[in-house]
Amino acid sequence: MKTEKIPYKIYLEESEMPKSWYNMRADMKKKPAPLLNPATKEPMKAEELGAVFCDELVAQELDDKTPYIEIPEEIRNFYKMYRPSPLVRAYCLEEKLGTPAKIYYKFEGNNTSGSHKLNSAIAQAYYAKKQGLKGVTTETGAGQWGTALSMACSYFGLDCKVFMVKCSYEQKPFRREVMRTYGASVTPSPSETTNVGRKILAEHPGTTGSLGCAISEAVEVAVGSDGYRYVLGSVLNQVLLHQSVIGLETKAALDKYSIKPDIIIGCAGGGSNLGGLISPFMGEKLRGEADYRIIAVEPASCPSLTRGVYAYDFCDTGMVCPLAKMYTLGSDFIPSANHAGGLRYHGMSSTLSELYDQGLMEATSVKQTDVFEAAEYFARVEGILPAPESSHAIRVAIDEALKCKETGEEKTIVFGLTGTGYFDMVAYEKFHDGEMSDTIPTDEELAAARAKLPKID
Amino acid sequence: MKTEKIPYKIYLEESEMPKSWYNMRADMKKKPAPLLNPATKEPMKAEELGAVFCDELVAQELDDKTPYIEIPEEIRNFYKMYRPSPLVRAYCLEEKLGTPAKIYYKFEGNNTSGSHKLNSAIAQAYYAKKQGLKGVTTETGAGQWGTALSMACSYFGLDCKVFMVKCSYEQKPFRREVMRTYGASVTPSPSETTNVGRKILAEHPGTTGSLGCAISEAVEVAVGSDGYRYVLGSVLNQVLLHQSVIGLETKAALDKYSIKPDIIIGCAGGGSNLGGLISPFMGEKLRGEADYRIIAVEPASCPSLTRGVYAYDFCDTGMVCPLAKMYTLGSDFIPSANHAGGLRYHGMSSTLSELYDQGLMEATSVKQTDVFEAAEYFARVEGILPAPESSHAIRVAIDEALKCKETGEEKTIVFGLTGTGYFDMVAYEKFHDGEMSDTIPTDEELAAARAKLPKID
Repeated sequence: MKTEKIPYKIYLEESEMPKSWYNMRADMKKKPAPLLNPATKEPMKAEELGAVFCDELVAQELDDKTPYIEIPEEIRNFYKMYRPSPLVRAYCLEEKLGTPAKIYYKFEGNNTSGSHKLNSAIAQAYYAKKQGLKGVTTETGAGQWGTALSMACSYFGLDCKVFMVKCSYEQKPFRREVMRTYGASVTPSPSETTNVGRKILAEHPGTTGSLGCAISEAVEVAVGSDGYRYVLGSVLNQVLLHQSVIGLETKAALDKYSIKPDIIIGCAGGGSNLGGLISPFMGEKLRGEADYRIIAVEPASCPSLTRGVYAYDFCDTGMVCPLAKMYTLGSDFIPSANHAGGLRYHGMSSTLSELYDQGLMEATSVKQTDVFEAAEYFARVEGILPAPESSHAIRVAIDEALKCKETGEEKTIVFGLTGTGYFDMVAYEKFHDGEMSDTIPTDEELAAARAKLPKID
Repeated sequence: MKTEKIPYKIYLEESEMPKSWYNMRADMKKKPAPLLNPATKEPMKAEELGAVFCDELVAQELDDKTPYIEIPEEIRNFYKMYRPSPLVRAYCLEEKLGTPAKIYYKFEGNNTSGSHKLNSAIAQAYYAKKQGLKGVTTETGAGQWGTALSMACSYFGLDCKVFMVKCSYEQKPFRREVMRTYGASVTPSPSETTNVGRKILAEHPGTTGSLGCAISEAVEVAVGSDGYRYVLGSVLNQVLLHQSVIGLETKAALDKYSIKPDIIIGCAGGGSNLGGLISPFMGEKLRGEADYRIIAVEPASCPSLTRGVYAYDFCDTGMVCPLAKMYTLGSDFIPSANHAGGLRYHGMSSTLSELYDQGLMEATSVKQTDVFEAAEYFARVEGILPAPESSHAIRVAIDEALKCKETGEEKTIVFGLTGTGYFDMVAYEKFHDGEMSDTIPTDEELAAARAKLPKID
């Protein structure tokens, strides 16, 4: 065991916690492309977005000028209940790998939602409450976002209607039950409670649902109910803004010990965790103050950055949401049943897509079996049982640390450990039993989905 | 929201973490009664216990003189991976209850075992490794102890054989899978792999097992295998010693802010958590330096302190273990299927039993439905989804805080939040669906079990 002065876990004092979120877009010379109205192909206006989203969140969504946005005191008080999250020095992992690299991870799993999703859920619930709304609607796949939103709504006394993809609803009854514990109503999607749900059920009687369908149902209920808005847990600029608390805390903790990372690694589905983690580091890069290697890790089964195209596309498969310019596989693309449900998204945050397009970050994809190998290794060495999503970052962090072992370089690696895998034991079981496979889309499959992208001049 | 100087969470620095465990027995004038050999009824000698337990653990078990026992550096390094655990000021709960009481809880659930069990598991695995053993055996009911031991054995490269009560093995496949992730072998008990298992299966072909049977199988395998010993996660003096790290951290955190608790509350099954939490406070009481109200909370379905007798009894239903003097319902007593599996034990730690008998602590019992009502309330207000076991302490903490509301007293209440309820959602589901009942043993049932206690002069 090494005996350095850096503690195993770096915690910030309450007084050191961030008081503002950081908005990367403010420091980008070339801004992310605007959302477009799918009917007119014109940039979405605040009043159009306000029919679906809370007013203050719309303002945050459209604001690409203000670098720091104050975190309201009510949200900071809630953050104090489960934040700061620890920045952990992975001494045991380093020793086991025999690497000269120094490895740190920001662990976001120590709250009941089991992930970083709570950081944005509490913000979105706060603004909904402030606007005087009765409640919010959303969709959830794996269930982490739905859980986080349930917790946030319970805290502010808001009604919370969650449409949960039917197969998850049936396969993950415990996730559903956690949401019920927080007072949310959870409806399997597609359902008979919406027009779009009834339509889909009529056309596909045996369907087990999809995230795209659940989004459409949640939006329909929000728009059609008095005092309700729709909220989303990833992809959007506002979500990356709220999640910047991860990166700001990480940077503050590193700065306390004068540590400068060389490589920053995060898993990427819609981009909420990665965008949050890298925010202040990317800010320095954008302002020419420092340089870092930043690596987005995605599943080989759903490789939007590494094998997608940078184009306008629908955010949902139901095509009710605005068009966003992003790296996408096409909203028609259906990824294989990878166990990292949180990474099964056809597109990528517009902000991250633009940063990637400008060459400011790298991307790589990893196979599911390699991911679970790293997950189990990590669990045994560092104690924490990681979520499949988070384990994508672990895989690449280990690979980079092993490269350092070969070259003898003492690089400092920071990765985001977004959550825990307590509700993913079916996936671990398949891995243990040798029943896990890797499905990688063929070039033909990707071309077919890409052919259906909307035509935008 | 109150704006006091006490932070939401008090964390200790690494340098402030305990370097020694505290052994309450050293400060007890009247010591707990010794373990007896069931055949001879004579006090168990170290060499007899050494056939079952690791040598250094036997020494700790029998040592009622040494107040502080140094925590080996290897164990302290492991503790640094998940400790110190936070002492949380329950500001939100206080506000919601409208109580003038100040409520703190020591939260032990932020590790993959989901509970405080890891504190003793890592110690027991360390001493097994130091003795040059190949591995250890144990039993697990709800699965938290088995998970903790799997993690500890994985860290030290020890083999780990867990006998899991068959009904839990089948009902909690995810717990089983977490243990497999850490490389443990998990056998449903009763099994065909032991004499006692085969005997029980022959007599009761359809049995779903019991903790007593699993203990017997684990002991048989340990005693019959070269290089193996048996380890236990509660009841024993050595376990309370290791768990004193909970109380020592709690006291150090309170002392940092000059906080003196009035009431200390913990749930009590075998006594591991409660004994650990109260250790340094009870030490002050025993030495006449301070006074505290200390309350043990047990389920009304298994009320060993409040409705049991103080007598010598078998620690296991298979009657293979030594006799211990304790508050007991009789080893023949079978508690109803309460969802707090960790509290379904017929007896109680000898040390705690003696302290209770001397009037140094109180005990109370609570009904399961009242416990889940408190659990859900707490989850919504404080964010953390508590384990059913821990929620017994929450129930009584809330009740005491409400008494303060009536009287206007600003008491300081500290309770132990031993773990999280992620693997207990079946119980929460039953509660939500109104299908949870309370089964309280009748006086006749208790008398019948008591009649079968062993006769000791």
